[in-house]
Amino acid sequence: MIGLSSYAGVMESLMNSAEEQQASCPLANSWSKTQESSKNQKPKGVGGFVLVHAGAGYHSESKAKEYKHVCKRACQRAVDQLKSGALAVEAVAAALVELEDSPFTNAGMGSNLNLSGEIECDASIMDGKSLHYGAVGAISGIKNPVLVANRLLSEAQKGKLSAGRIPPCFLVGRGAHDWAVSHGIPPCPSEKMATKFSLSAYKRNKRKMELAEKMDTGHNQTKKRRQSSENEYGSGCLDTVGAVVVDLEGNVAAAVSSGGLAMKHPGRVGQAAHYGCGCWAENACNMNPYSTAVSTSGCGEHLIRTMLARECSAAMQSEDAHQALLEAMQNKFISSPFLASEDRVLGGVIVLRCCRCVEAQPSQNIQGILGKTLIVSRPIVLGLHATADGRQRFTHISRLPPGTVPGQSLAIEGGVKCFLRPM
Amino acid sequence: MIGLSSYAGVMESLMNSAEEQQASCPLANSWSKTQESSKNQKPKGVGGFVLVHAGAGYHSESKAKEYKHVCKRACQRAVDQLKSGALAVEAVAAALVELEDSPFTNAGMGSNLNLSGEIECDASIMDGKSLHYGAVGAISGIKNPVLVANRLLSEAQKGKLSAGRIPPCFLVGRGAHDWAVSHGIPPCPSEKMATKFSLSAYKRNKRKMELAEKMDTGHNQTKKRRQSSENEYGSGCLDTVGAVVVDLEGNVAAAVSSGGLAMKHPGRVGQAAHYGCGCWAENACNMNPYSTAVSTSGCGEHLIRTMLARECSAAMQSEDAHQALLEAMQNKFISSPFLASEDRVLGGVIVLRCCRCVEAQPSQNIQGILGKTLIVSRPIVLGLHATADGRQRFTHISRLPPGTVPGQSLAIEGGVKCFLRPM
Repeated sequence: MIGLSSYAGVMESLMNSAEEQQASCPLANSWSKTQESSKNQKPKGVGGFVLVHAGAGYHSESKAKEYKHVCKRACQRAVDQLKSGALAVEAVAAALVELEDSPFTNAGMGSNLNLSGEIECDASIMDGKSLHYGAVGAISGIKNPVLVANRLLSEAQKGKLSAGRIPPCFLVGRGAHDWAVSHGIPPCPSEKMATKFSLSAYKRNKRKMELAEKMDTGHNQTKKRRQSSENEYGSGCLDTVGAVVVDLEGNVAAAVSSGGLAMKHPGRVGQAAHYGCGCWAENACNMNPYSTAVSTSGCGEHLIRTMLARECSAAMQSEDAHQALLEAMQNKFISSPFLASEDRVLGGVIVLRCCRCVEAQPSQNIQGILGKTLIVSRPIVLGLHATADGRQRFTHISRLPPGTVPGQSLAIEGGVKCFLRPM
Repeated sequence: MIGLSSYAGVMESLMNSAEEQQASCPLANSWSKTQESSKNQKPKGVGGFVLVHAGAGYHSESKAKEYKHVCKRACQRAVDQLKSGALAVEAVAAALVELEDSPFTNAGMGSNLNLSGEIECDASIMDGKSLHYGAVGAISGIKNPVLVANRLLSEAQKGKLSAGRIPPCFLVGRGAHDWAVSHGIPPCPSEKMATKFSLSAYKRNKRKMELAEKMDTGHNQTKKRRQSSENEYGSGCLDTVGAVVVDLEGNVAAAVSSGGLAMKHPGRVGQAAHYGCGCWAENACNMNPYSTAVSTSGCGEHLIRTMLARECSAAMQSEDAHQALLEAMQNKFISSPFLASEDRVLGGVIVLRCCRCVEAQPSQNIQGILGKTLIVSRPIVLGLHATADGRQRFTHISRLPPGTVPGQSLAIEGGVKCFLRPM
């Protein structure tokens, strides 16, 4: 097992051609070599942009290769979607399906088991274009919870149900499962969703719990809680997976999916299903000069009570988005008054910002979409990871080239792809 | 049935002695006579403050008396709690229990039935002092969902569970029910929670739905939805109940409870269980000069997607809270880009703002608490009700007396109690 600040992220542009980079970037101002070398090149074309992550939390070093591969596949799925003309929201859902299908991530297949030994998943998705949102919480027996969230989103966009009923944006539990099945999403027997790894983790965690409770026998309840919390904290996976995407038209979308905390109480819903907490996506509009997309990972209760996704989105409307994000992570999360009673806070976030400038002149290097020429500015993509254990670490994946004026039109160049080694 | 802008609210101070007022106050700048007459009186003592409402939506005129009575009883329950030394969070829970127990409100007993003819409730509570929050969604077989939300809140305040597990702040469905029962909250057979009224409403709604779907046979799905949405919309109750409280120490708390939309899909969770959307409470702190408490009512999906409770709380930090609130209702709700695709938006909110000034000199009129003398400034209490059907109406219940400087210390005078007639 490796440190809490380990982080797996892959981002990939549509027109990707650059070589893969494997580098740890602990300094906020460091730059990926790929970016440095590409910033003076001419744009190869307007592309979408995809960034995925396999979750904050403890990852086994022995599985680093698997995490990398699943992130790559998830990126590729989203890129394929964008290439075929799909909007950001469809592409981000496609990336999430790949992450959920991996038995190594804590989402969909292979999710953490709850106290009763069952899998209950949370997922949500947000479309920056329509500002619609769909979410499911504590859903069982569905292999890809993100598809249910996405279907809720698209059904809501169709307008009201019969007799003027308002379509739901958030469904939980058995009702969510039944809705999914009635909308053509196939059920999956729960036993097929558990893996050898998740089952053995469950048994291990259960033994730990029983041991902790046994050791505490004779103490009063409060004392017991305080004592037992010291050593075991964080041993469960906290790995909500997620992705952010900007499509060829400049629309953004974000999604998250999670099996939740290991040994959680049945019915517990984490940030992955919580509006403003698990993901956020908002296209540029009159009020907001930038399109932003955010996906969070970490301890659900901490991310809910600080509404971290929405806070990061708001921060990215600042001119100096990088600085504003660092401050948001510090002031709105690590030092948040909402988490004052917590001894440690745990969270990570991937963000994407871009601005959309229409009506530029078409050229060979710029792809015309729907009769208009759109230029998507080079997105800011940041992966931040915060712990309050004294080691506040911000992992910086990529940022705008120095000297870029906010609002400046830059076509996305081919190929920034980076993978952060577990540190 | 009466118009959508009908609104039932009762607010009552701890030391209440003034007569009851029954007046419709359609103008934002109108003043209650009770207030006008009391604003120049000397403070009778520092008290808490309680404001409850029985929900936005359609209320039967024939039951106006009942709504009034249940609001009075709910106020009294909270007042009794405050008098016995309880904190705001306990008092607001007590008020909600009374509202839930009424067969006339859409919360707890007598809640709207869902598509399957079952009752599934949402509730949440927030404590402005600790900033903790507890919520339950789609919970069945529990008479008082707010008590489960409150218990989640208080359990989370005790710290971590065995083996370092993080206690949940949000539970849904069967898991929420089982957690409640295991924490001593008695189950209630579902059939006992339905009333003659809710059962007949269910049958009526079901017939309407069947008729609407029958009429649409032959049309395509999209057309069907659009057409059927015209006439029936809003015929269901939209009545999330709620309360906001400031206690003798100046702490604020807020809570909401709802049976949700009539004929909702099983598992649908509305704003009443959604952080930042159903209720909000935040004590004054370094960053915020005012303590604020908010409780919303209306269409859950609209209130979720605009995070109305939190938006109103933020607006109240403005010097001119009244104006800021009106603007928030207009810009962040009625004209919100998040609801751009909705033909009508529906929502109401009660808010409370006060500032807490410590270390004033004690006097006969000011009650010393915990060795300190606290003066709770006269709260701003507003009831706003917004519809986007062309008739934007703000119902103004009470505001600071003209000339009051923000931050000025005013003990809460005895007795403002008002009830807004259905309009």
